[in-house]
Amino acid sequence: MDATPRMPDVVDLTKALIAAESVTPALGRVFDVLEAALIPLGFMVERFIEGEAPDGPVENLLAVRGSGAPHFAFAGHLDVVPPGAGWTSDAFEPQIRGGLLHGRGAVDMKGAIAAFVAAAARTPPTGTTSLIITGDEEGPAIFGTRALIERMAERGLKPDFCLVGEPTSAQRLGDMIKIGRRGSVNIWIDVPGKQGHVAYPQLADNPIPKLVAILAEIDAIILDTGTEWFQPSNIEATDITVGNPATNVIPAQASARLSIRYNDLHRGDDLAARIEAIVHRHAPAATMIARVSGDAFVTAPGALSTLIGDAIEARLGLRPELSTTGGTSDARFLSRLCPVVEFGLVNATMHKLDEAVAVEDLAALADIYADILTRVAST
Amino acid sequence: MDATPRMPDVVDLTKALIAAESVTPALGRVFDVLEAALIPLGFMVERFIEGEAPDGPVENLLAVRGSGAPHFAFAGHLDVVPPGAGWTSDAFEPQIRGGLLHGRGAVDMKGAIAAFVAAAARTPPTGTTSLIITGDEEGPAIFGTRALIERMAERGLKPDFCLVGEPTSAQRLGDMIKIGRRGSVNIWIDVPGKQGHVAYPQLADNPIPKLVAILAEIDAIILDTGTEWFQPSNIEATDITVGNPATNVIPAQASARLSIRYNDLHRGDDLAARIEAIVHRHAPAATMIARVSGDAFVTAPGALSTLIGDAIEARLGLRPELSTTGGTSDARFLSRLCPVVEFGLVNATMHKLDEAVAVEDLAALADIYADILTRVAST
Repeated sequence: MDATPRMPDVVDLTKALIAAESVTPALGRVFDVLEAALIPLGFMVERFIEGEAPDGPVENLLAVRGSGAPHFAFAGHLDVVPPGAGWTSDAFEPQIRGGLLHGRGAVDMKGAIAAFVAAAARTPPTGTTSLIITGDEEGPAIFGTRALIERMAERGLKPDFCLVGEPTSAQRLGDMIKIGRRGSVNIWIDVPGKQGHVAYPQLADNPIPKLVAILAEIDAIILDTGTEWFQPSNIEATDITVGNPATNVIPAQASARLSIRYNDLHRGDDLAARIEAIVHRHAPAATMIARVSGDAFVTAPGALSTLIGDAIEARLGLRPELSTTGGTSDARFLSRLCPVVEFGLVNATMHKLDEAVAVEDLAALADIYADILTRVAST
Repeated sequence: MDATPRMPDVVDLTKALIAAESVTPALGRVFDVLEAALIPLGFMVERFIEGEAPDGPVENLLAVRGSGAPHFAFAGHLDVVPPGAGWTSDAFEPQIRGGLLHGRGAVDMKGAIAAFVAAAARTPPTGTTSLIITGDEEGPAIFGTRALIERMAERGLKPDFCLVGEPTSAQRLGDMIKIGRRGSVNIWIDVPGKQGHVAYPQLADNPIPKLVAILAEIDAIILDTGTEWFQPSNIEATDITVGNPATNVIPAQASARLSIRYNDLHRGDDLAARIEAIVHRHAPAATMIARVSGDAFVTAPGALSTLIGDAIEARLGLRPELSTTGGTSDARFLSRLCPVVEFGLVNATMHKLDEAVAVEDLAALADIYADILTRVAST
C-alpha cells in the first residue's frame, strides 16, 4: 500500500462523480466514489440512509478530519435534477469539448464537491474539517441535510463556519457569493363550486369568480420594499387550473398555486395565515395547503464573507457581490448552526441541457477553497 | 299497390328512428327511415348533403306537401348526442319498460319528428305543410338548418309559421313552450407572458395577474336586469388554463374562456367588442377569439303561441308557460323567416344516460301537433 495518497485531480473526480448517475434522490454508487476519494485523505466517513418513499430513501454522508477549533464545514449535495432529452452528449458520460466539461451535475454541484476534496488534499489538517453531503437537495429535502444536522448533533459536531458549494457565480467565477436566502412558501388554493349549465346559472355555483377575487386581492399586496440585505418580498401566482373542456358548463372546481419568496421581515407561517384569511373571506368552503420550504436567513457580512472574498480576490482579481437572491438551498438548515456562506461555480447552465463547467474554473475553485482552508486555519 | 297509405304509428316510427343510429353529424339510414314515412303521405322530399370535415358532411331533408297559404313548417333534427357508457339497455335498441320508451333521441328529438309525421298523416292537407329536418343541430350546426333555409329560399318556400319540435316541456308534457332564446357567445382569451424562475420575477412577466384583472373587471359587469320576455343577461367564466406543473416557475401563458348568454338588449358582436376592450386595456398583447352562436330572438306572444297553447290546453288541460330560458336551438336561424315557437317532449332525460319518453306522451304530442295543423288551417 502506498503510504502517500495520490492527490485527487479535480477534473478526474468531477468526471467520476458525473459518471455515477444520481438523479435525486441519490443513493449508492456516487457516494462510493466520494468515499473512496476521502478515505485516503484521512477523513472518517459515516454514511447512512434515511426515509422511505415517496420522499426517500436518501443517502447522506458525513466526513470528518481532525478535531478541535476551528471547525470548518463544507456542505453540498450529490443528487442532480433529471437530465431531460436533447443533450449533445450523454448527460452521464462526462465529455470535455472546447475547454468545457459537460455532464449533469458539472456545476450543480459535483464540480464543487470535487474541488473541495482536491482543496482538502493539498491543505495540511488544522482544527476540524468536515463534509456534509446529502443525496437529496433537489427533491423534497426532508431526509437530507436535516438528517445530517441531527447526526452531527449526536456526534457532538458543531461547525464554526460553513461553506455551501452551490453554484452562486453569475457571469464569471467569483462574481457573487450568497450570504443569505429569502424564505419560500408554496400555497395551493382549491375553491369548490357546483357544476351546472351556463344557461341556468342560478342552479350552479361558479368557483371562478371567487378564485379571481382571491387572486386579485392577493396581487394587490405589497409585502415590503426590501431590507438592508434583501430585495422586496414577492408573491407570484404560478398556476390556475379549472380543467373544464365544455363551453356550456359552469365548472365544479377552480384551483390556484402561489409561490411567495420573502425576506427576513416575514415568517412563512404568518404569510400563509394572511393568505388563508383572504381565501376564506371570498370562499368560506375553500381549502388551502401551505408548504414552507424555509424561512429567510442571513449571515450578516463579517469574518466569513470577508475571508472568502479575500480568497476569491487573491486568485481571480475580483471582489464578489454579497447577495441574497435566488432560490432556496440547504444553507437554510445549516444557518441554524453557524455562519454560512455559499460560493461555487457559474450557474448559467444549472438544471439545463448541456450543463457544463469550464475546466479552468474547476482548477481555480479548488485553489480558492484551499486558500479558504488555509485562511480559516490561521484565524 | 295499396292506394290508402298505412297511418304511421308514432311509437313504431320513433323506435325505427332511434334504431337508425345517428350520432351527430347524421347521414343516410335515419333519413331513409323518415323519407319512407313521408312519401306515402304525399310529401315531396328533397335530401342533400352539405359540408366537409371537420364540420360536415351533414345530411338535410326538406319535405313539402301542398301549396299556398298558410304555410306551416315543422323543424327539427335527426342527429343525436353520443350515448355515453352505462345505459341499462343499448342506446340504439329502443326498448319499452314501465311505459317508457328508452333510446338515444327518444325526446331529443326523434319522438317529436315521429309525432309530427303521425299528425300530418291524419290531417287533411290544407295550404302548405313542410318539414325542415337537419342532421346537425347538436354539433357545429354550420351546414344544417342554415343550409336548409338557403335551399328553401332557392325553392321559393317561405313559411308563415314554424314549430320547432325541441323538447321544451320541463316537468310534464305541455308545461312550457319557448317563444325565444337568449343569444350565446363564447370567448377565448389568451394572455402571453414571459416564463422565468419565481426567485427572479424581474426577469419574467407573469400573465396570471393580467388575466385575473381582466376576469375581475368582467365579473363586475351587470349587463342588464332582464326584459319583458327575458331573464337578465349573464357572463360566466367557464375555464382558466395555465398548465404550469412547476412550483418555482412563472408561467409563459394564461388563458380563460367565457360564455355569455344574453337577451335582446344586446348583440353578440357588441359584447365581444366590449370584452376585447377590457382584455386589451389590461394586456395589450393578449389575443381574443369570439364565436357568436346566435343572437337573441323572440316571437312576441301572439297568434302562434296562443294557437299552440290552446291545442295543449285542449288535450292536456294545462296552459304552457311562455319561456325564453335554456340553451340555443336552431330556432335562432328560423326566426329570421317567420314567427317561431318551440314545443316538444319533456327534456328531463335529454343528453343523459337512459334517455326515455313516456309512450303516452308520444301519443298526446301527435294529437296536439295534429290539432295545431287543424287550427292553422282554419286561420
